[in-house]
Amino acid sequence: MQEKWKEIDECIRQWIKEAGTRILATFDKKLTIETKSHRNDLVTNVDREVEQFFIEKIRKTFPGHHVLGEEGFGDEIATLQGIVWIIDPIDGTMNFIHQKRNFAISIGVFENGVGVLGYVYDVVHDELYAARKGEGAFLNDQPLARLEPVSVSEAIISLNATWITENKRIDPNVLAPLVKDARGTRSYGSAALEMAYVAAGRLDAYITMRLSPWDFAGGLVLVQEVGGIVTNLYGEPLNLLTKNSVFVSKPGLHEEILQKYIHR
Amino acid sequence: MQEKWKEIDECIRQWIKEAGTRILATFDKKLTIETKSHRNDLVTNVDREVEQFFIEKIRKTFPGHHVLGEEGFGDEIATLQGIVWIIDPIDGTMNFIHQKRNFAISIGVFENGVGVLGYVYDVVHDELYAARKGEGAFLNDQPLARLEPVSVSEAIISLNATWITENKRIDPNVLAPLVKDARGTRSYGSAALEMAYVAAGRLDAYITMRLSPWDFAGGLVLVQEVGGIVTNLYGEPLNLLTKNSVFVSKPGLHEEILQKYIHR
Repeated sequence: MQEKWKEIDECIRQWIKEAGTRILATFDKKLTIETKSHRNDLVTNVDREVEQFFIEKIRKTFPGHHVLGEEGFGDEIATLQGIVWIIDPIDGTMNFIHQKRNFAISIGVFENGVGVLGYVYDVVHDELYAARKGEGAFLNDQPLARLEPVSVSEAIISLNATWITENKRIDPNVLAPLVKDARGTRSYGSAALEMAYVAAGRLDAYITMRLSPWDFAGGLVLVQEVGGIVTNLYGEPLNLLTKNSVFVSKPGLHEEILQKYIHR
Repeated sequence: MQEKWKEIDECIRQWIKEAGTRILATFDKKLTIETKSHRNDLVTNVDREVEQFFIEKIRKTFPGHHVLGEEGFGDEIATLQGIVWIIDPIDGTMNFIHQKRNFAISIGVFENGVGVLGYVYDVVHDELYAARKGEGAFLNDQPLARLEPVSVSEAIISLNATWITENKRIDPNVLAPLVKDARGTRSYGSAALEMAYVAAGRLDAYITMRLSPWDFAGGLVLVQEVGGIVTNLYGEPLNLLTKNSVFVSKPGLHEEILQKYIHR
């Protein structure tokens, strides 16, 4: 890996820990909570402050890079040319507010649309999932094993109950049979953590119907680096500039689910 | 609280930590996994060894007490007379196997059917949730706050997707509207932890259609001690000798869900 990327990786590791410390320090203070697109789309002052923290650091250290951030303090990005950072300062804001755990900082860095660096930092448990393209993925200092194929009947799938209830994105009858046939389902409320769990082998797949690029950018690099497959629900590549359905899975399982369960 | 109960409490705290250390030590070893009632009802040698560990300790230290344990090494119990321990050596065995986290040791101690002591120990995160009737509930040394009423629209409810998919226990249409109206749903795959999360205020309610007494005995004492409500799905008291549906909730929310959503 080029020196340039090693330097970026070192900066991210330092900044992400510093941001984590800042987030933990807010637990004693009163949060300002607002809603965004709808009543359950929440944002706090901490999400905004942490995004600004990262953007200031990036602009100062890497002035030629572009930044796409959830809270809108980054750049307006129309293409993926050059080096693009995609950042979610707190993925799982609802968990952050209600649980003070089960949220993560997510960062993905892309060069001309190709994922090079990916990070998901579980702040409360001090667990940093990190990957450099071609160099493996790690949980703190522990290398993550390559993902092996598994079948639906042995799989634990992260899938929120919303997607098998009447909703705007998918007929509830599409995924209901998958819930019945899988060994079990779970739902944690943070896409970044759920993708990190797939990368770490704790979940076999994760399916959700609507994520923004900052929700999946870090996890995408992580999961691909251990041999997992990341597409939209219909097996197509994710678009890093728009919202997507997201289907992350171990190999084998990805094909089985696509063939047996998914139809538009 | 009587001296007798203080002694029992001290023993449990010591034994539960020792059992946790034994469980962690198995992470490097190969598990023996078998199925019980159906293909996804799993048990390992570790579940059995940990239950035997507790039962030996209890029989030696408190020979007059009765023990009901998930793995069947305890007593055949037909009544709740006297002091009865209800033990799950590993609640969330599927998580234990697949994730090496998100499982717990659960212990409830009852006197003539009344819950006196309750413990849920999240082994991997070293978090002991413990309650003594009338003396409050604690997460490690931190007292847990009394639960305040909340409405469905602000509630995070733990509810597995199974219960809104075709299943043997409930019409999927009963709980689907609750999934739509709640702020969010989650599913963690360990009843004991999910009840501990309600006690700690991280979840507002937890609903499941079929649990055995050892799954909910520890959590029952915990949740009641902080003012939460524990019933079956239809608002009736749980039977500690049989399987039950389980509905654990903050006050206010419990009544709202019963009135607006639950019908047989």
